[in-house]
Amino acid sequence: MLPISRFAPLPDHAKSIGGGLTAPQGFLAAGVASGVKKRGKLDLGLVLSEQPAVSAATFTSNAAAAAPVRLTRETSDCGRLQAIVVNAGNANACTGKQGLADAARMRLLTANHLRLPVEQVAVCSTGLIGVHLPMDKIEPGIAAAAAAMPGGGDAKAAEHFSAAIRTTDKHAKKGALEVVTPEGKVKLGFAAKGCGMISPNMATMLCFVTCDAQVEGAAWAGLLHGAVDRSFNRITVDGQESTNDTVLGLCNGASGIKPGEEGLARLGRALDAALLALALSIVADGEGSTRTMKLTVSGAKDEGRAEAVARAVANSPLVKTAFFGRDPNWGRIMQAIGQALGRDGHDHLPARISYEDVVIVERGQPAPLGEVQQGRLTEIMHQPEIDLTVALNGPGAEATVYFSDLTHDYVTLNAEYST
Amino acid sequence: MLPISRFAPLPDHAKSIGGGLTAPQGFLAAGVASGVKKRGKLDLGLVLSEQPAVSAATFTSNAAAAAPVRLTRETSDCGRLQAIVVNAGNANACTGKQGLADAARMRLLTANHLRLPVEQVAVCSTGLIGVHLPMDKIEPGIAAAAAAMPGGGDAKAAEHFSAAIRTTDKHAKKGALEVVTPEGKVKLGFAAKGCGMISPNMATMLCFVTCDAQVEGAAWAGLLHGAVDRSFNRITVDGQESTNDTVLGLCNGASGIKPGEEGLARLGRALDAALLALALSIVADGEGSTRTMKLTVSGAKDEGRAEAVARAVANSPLVKTAFFGRDPNWGRIMQAIGQALGRDGHDHLPARISYEDVVIVERGQPAPLGEVQQGRLTEIMHQPEIDLTVALNGPGAEATVYFSDLTHDYVTLNAEYST
Repeated sequence: MLPISRFAPLPDHAKSIGGGLTAPQGFLAAGVASGVKKRGKLDLGLVLSEQPAVSAATFTSNAAAAAPVRLTRETSDCGRLQAIVVNAGNANACTGKQGLADAARMRLLTANHLRLPVEQVAVCSTGLIGVHLPMDKIEPGIAAAAAAMPGGGDAKAAEHFSAAIRTTDKHAKKGALEVVTPEGKVKLGFAAKGCGMISPNMATMLCFVTCDAQVEGAAWAGLLHGAVDRSFNRITVDGQESTNDTVLGLCNGASGIKPGEEGLARLGRALDAALLALALSIVADGEGSTRTMKLTVSGAKDEGRAEAVARAVANSPLVKTAFFGRDPNWGRIMQAIGQALGRDGHDHLPARISYEDVVIVERGQPAPLGEVQQGRLTEIMHQPEIDLTVALNGPGAEATVYFSDLTHDYVTLNAEYST
Repeated sequence: MLPISRFAPLPDHAKSIGGGLTAPQGFLAAGVASGVKKRGKLDLGLVLSEQPAVSAATFTSNAAAAAPVRLTRETSDCGRLQAIVVNAGNANACTGKQGLADAARMRLLTANHLRLPVEQVAVCSTGLIGVHLPMDKIEPGIAAAAAAMPGGGDAKAAEHFSAAIRTTDKHAKKGALEVVTPEGKVKLGFAAKGCGMISPNMATMLCFVTCDAQVEGAAWAGLLHGAVDRSFNRITVDGQESTNDTVLGLCNGASGIKPGEEGLARLGRALDAALLALALSIVADGEGSTRTMKLTVSGAKDEGRAEAVARAVANSPLVKTAFFGRDPNWGRIMQAIGQALGRDGHDHLPARISYEDVVIVERGQPAPLGEVQQGRLTEIMHQPEIDLTVALNGPGAEATVYFSDLTHDYVTLNAEYST
């Protein structure tokens, strides 16, 4: 089932159903153990649409993008994918020309086994940076996954795929939705992974979406990019963007249902909610995180400024440690806002700062709190999800980000391992 | 004595001498206990030049700049200061109109007691954010400090001043230099405080410089601003700029020595070394810090890009925790470089990354290390100061930053206190 958050309620006409990527009609999946991960863990996955699918993709903007990202982005037909091959345990990043050749070989083998043109296959990797792929394990792995494909239409196959793309995720991030459109029922399937760059050299947020509605390519791309922008592009664990981040969405029309305007809007709202729920589960699963904050900044000069202020607060280690300590330390929030605005931004202060329904700062100064409000504030600081709002003194542009706290476990996880 | 770092060696013609702000001729200081800090600790300081001094100042660019910063920056004559009043324990930040009135009152009282025009007095505060100054303590404190002034010409007075501006600094940050110019000997005196925003709501880096050379205002401002840009503007503990950061330099000519071109160059190099040493002692003293890294990025498209890359690495919590764990985790450095360059920066990779004399990455890929180099790398990772270089594949612009690691103590210090 999809992970649940109060910040990502399901919209009307959408309901969570069992299964994952293979819940929509016409999709097959497989996950096998190639031997890259130790102890026979699943580490290589395939997704296949039985018929050509309109598709859309977003990739990391990191200049050190990994070989599979560069290969897929630059040489696959990302508007018309039919299959995805993913390996975990090795990111194939910072691996030079050999890395690009290895990614191309993964794609070619997958295409040959599945009898597809290479351009219709996308390649993703996640795991260690700076180590060449062990192709002696990857090649038979791809063959085994392709051989398992004909039986890959059930929930178990989706489960195997999900397991194969995990690295250090504590929780599986998968699920499926049924969306009722005026034209009939369609389904969406999801599989994601990521918890920040938690492990030694481990990178990567990956998300795969399947859909069996009949949707035009441009409309599908619009829905997917919009949903990514409102979810994965709004979260921060430690402000670090990996070399391998990729979101791929395939929409194959196998349901025979072609949603009209209202149906597309419902599909879009369902996709938004699902990707936000998955993104929030990455924050909640991230690097020693104990709570998730939603921060909305309003009253900014423009949207860019609103987002800069929100990110400055969300990425401040002082703010993040305060939330770990359950300390409503608004001085650190003011400091981060002021730093992001810079000197010429003084007119946009004073600001109002609220923790849920408690206004803690008014006109840039502490608001006097009675005993009841103090008690309410303590209660709020113990919630697993906290809703924060910052109102600047400007025209009104708004932005929202979601962030985790900074804890001892973050330091332990990231320091106490030696390469 | 000035703190010592291998990254800030003293130049020729300069030597460290005893004393602090009052080592240069014609400067008096005082530090008293006003009662803002508990248990009778010194918390209010004055510096006075017996004669008018050319002066220069730099302030935080935080939009939420504290009242004393706004007052001094906007209404004092920062090119012609004669006295500085500083209180610790309360930052007078986020305190609205009342805060501005309180800062103005501090300045007026100081000017009256010392018989100076108000414009020649600067005001600084450091401590808690969002609490009004207890003027019933501050006012008699200023009177007491002014009354102690006639005896304020010795090293003990400078010591008291230094103690009065400390908040949670573990080590005193002060010292003095004698600089031999072709025209004769001149002296520089220093007092600084800061260790990141270490304590609950505690902010602020402050630095005060005195000098008894005869220097024109523009030349003095040039020396001071240059030195600040190469020191305090190059360090990062947690990337957070406070509401109160201020550097003030007073140069009163009392030595009667007027350095020529060569003498000014020597004075500038001495000032550079001293401010860098003070800045590095802030990093070393900062927030649970166990080691200090110097990072030089070269081969960038322009200086702005070089600095952005350097800061991205220096502020990455993944890089910082790796140094805490003594892990030469170059994958995290590559990730941060790539994030800062963005997608269009791919041509400026591959990069060479060196830890001291060990090249660990060549052309963006791991460089093979022999046993001897592995041993050397382990040794390097245990040093208290580590010299890192990143060579990008571009035209050649360069930037340097200094940063601390991220440790359990940082989390403890910043989380385990509740307001």
